[in-house]
Amino acid sequence: MSELRYDPFKRTWVIIASGRGQRPRDNRFTESDALPEKMASVDNTCPFCPGNEAMTPPEILAIREPDTGPDTPGWKVRVIPNKYPALTTESPFSPEVLGPHMIGAGFGIHEVVIETPADNLQIEDLPVEHLADVLKIYGERLGELNTDGRFRTVLIFKNRGVEAGATLKHSHSQIMAIPVVPNLITDELSSCREHFHQSGRCMMCRIIEDETRERVRVVVEEDRYLVFAPFSSSVPFELRIVPREHCQDFSRIESADLLHLSEVMKMTLKRLNTALADPPYNLILHTSPPPPVNKEDGHAGSVEDYYHWYFELTPRTTRLAGFERATGFFVNPTSPEEAAQILRNIEI
Amino acid sequence: MSELRYDPFKRTWVIIASGRGQRPRDNRFTESDALPEKMASVDNTCPFCPGNEAMTPPEILAIREPDTGPDTPGWKVRVIPNKYPALTTESPFSPEVLGPHMIGAGFGIHEVVIETPADNLQIEDLPVEHLADVLKIYGERLGELNTDGRFRTVLIFKNRGVEAGATLKHSHSQIMAIPVVPNLITDELSSCREHFHQSGRCMMCRIIEDETRERVRVVVEEDRYLVFAPFSSSVPFELRIVPREHCQDFSRIESADLLHLSEVMKMTLKRLNTALADPPYNLILHTSPPPPVNKEDGHAGSVEDYYHWYFELTPRTTRLAGFERATGFFVNPTSPEEAAQILRNIEI
Repeated sequence: MSELRYDPFKRTWVIIASGRGQRPRDNRFTESDALPEKMASVDNTCPFCPGNEAMTPPEILAIREPDTGPDTPGWKVRVIPNKYPALTTESPFSPEVLGPHMIGAGFGIHEVVIETPADNLQIEDLPVEHLADVLKIYGERLGELNTDGRFRTVLIFKNRGVEAGATLKHSHSQIMAIPVVPNLITDELSSCREHFHQSGRCMMCRIIEDETRERVRVVVEEDRYLVFAPFSSSVPFELRIVPREHCQDFSRIESADLLHLSEVMKMTLKRLNTALADPPYNLILHTSPPPPVNKEDGHAGSVEDYYHWYFELTPRTTRLAGFERATGFFVNPTSPEEAAQILRNIEI
Repeated sequence: MSELRYDPFKRTWVIIASGRGQRPRDNRFTESDALPEKMASVDNTCPFCPGNEAMTPPEILAIREPDTGPDTPGWKVRVIPNKYPALTTESPFSPEVLGPHMIGAGFGIHEVVIETPADNLQIEDLPVEHLADVLKIYGERLGELNTDGRFRTVLIFKNRGVEAGATLKHSHSQIMAIPVVPNLITDELSSCREHFHQSGRCMMCRIIEDETRERVRVVVEEDRYLVFAPFSSSVPFELRIVPREHCQDFSRIESADLLHLSEVMKMTLKRLNTALADPPYNLILHTSPPPPVNKEDGHAGSVEDYYHWYFELTPRTTRLAGFERATGFFVNPTSPEEAAQILRNIEI
């Protein structure tokens, strides 16, 4: 079982998860995906491929063909518990104080979303409707875990490629629910709340307006979504995919918007793949936290007013060195204006 | 020229340094260093090797043989400005507000400490007296930049190996001075100040006492220094090298202690190299900031009382993935107790 340990200097929690070191590492990352017309392939050694459902824990949720049973082939998107979870719900989280430190059971949820039965396809290769189903599953699990009551933060993210932290090649994303709120998230919420308090409006809405006017950092402009390289991009070609309409909670997204978002996400990834030759990346959903944290002081505005969900897409082409580790500041050799121009000019 | 841009969500600064992308990358990292008895070698293409002094900007400081002139061979340790600096002092730092963002000139200092003339030796291969000279140079530059008046943070760190962010193989470390205080550092100072305020003593002194008594995370015990795996280690085999005697400012270190520290650092790195087969790592000096930040409210104690300098040594054997990027929390598959035991049991 894993542990949550509190770092009294950095004021963060660390997950000590000894079992995670034993998880299998895919040695197929360097194989080429090149198949004629990206035909879907299946690998009988891959735990995420259809036919191998018994290699994973029983599924939590799936979008599957009628008349197919759980944990059998016939699924399109499949959610399973992580077989090597960083956190579990075995023991409750009641941290013990040990001098300046704290320690508690590694309490939480760790799930995997298998995004396609095809072993070799990436999300941008999927039909718009299929990727919309993946995003719909994100929303469903988020809604469920946000109202569960045991968690203070729910995270949905995707690691693509070894350099981005993926250990299996088959396209998948992860969901984690944890009993604490990381400082990074508290800071982001506070920043947005303060901006709302000072200016009477949502910071992201203001940024969407600025970016749409200035255009120099915009990559994809669509009716419902805007994709741009953020002004203070931490890594080359960092992007944000943002709904134009104010909404704090991704789980409230409507079906028609899922198709728009899916289309925009595909276009964005295709441009990125062309510019950087299929880079490793992390895709992270930033959305409002579960209710307990929402109950801020009333006059500062509620999270519905001040927060605005978005996807953060960060290619991993640079390495974090001592300076980044010491300061939390990033050194980015490519300006967002330069990155956006390159991405805009790509014909897809 | 680079820029400092403020991220209004994460409340951090990012350095946009377009020129840094053009710096040369050493393709000699994969070459074996194995020479009989680690004899010192010289590479005539390496800008850090003796004879190639003209390939670097003029030296700032060096420890060199008598009767040898600046920027000629005969040096033992050499400090130069970084040829591809992330920051320069060309323009002053006076950030402009742009909506929720801020932007300012990339003001600061970026230096390189070439630790040895030998192209193939690592710091743990150097004689104790030589490594003590490297540490002495750290102290001298730190003292100088801390009293310069233009900087709020001075950083000394070493990136070893490609995975740790090094671009040149020849053993070196870096010094950066920046005009702002990163949140990571503010948080650490606040944590230590609050601990002092609440308990009347330095948090690190308390931890040294606890670790010495418990022993399970101790790796090297020496009269003047203690090396241990921190309770909330963020990565496998993370270590702290800490002076037993309370002192907030590394630049005040005395000559005799430089030799002790050098010996302890060599022993630590040799154990780590045996355990993890010469891992890439970051070595970061945590020390008290330049004076302006010291002027805290008097009754909370001064930085002399509450801060305690140390070296953080983090091997880079795991990859940061989406979860770490989203939360700032690390998932560490090796407990510090397990790592310390392995390191203690190594015969060197």
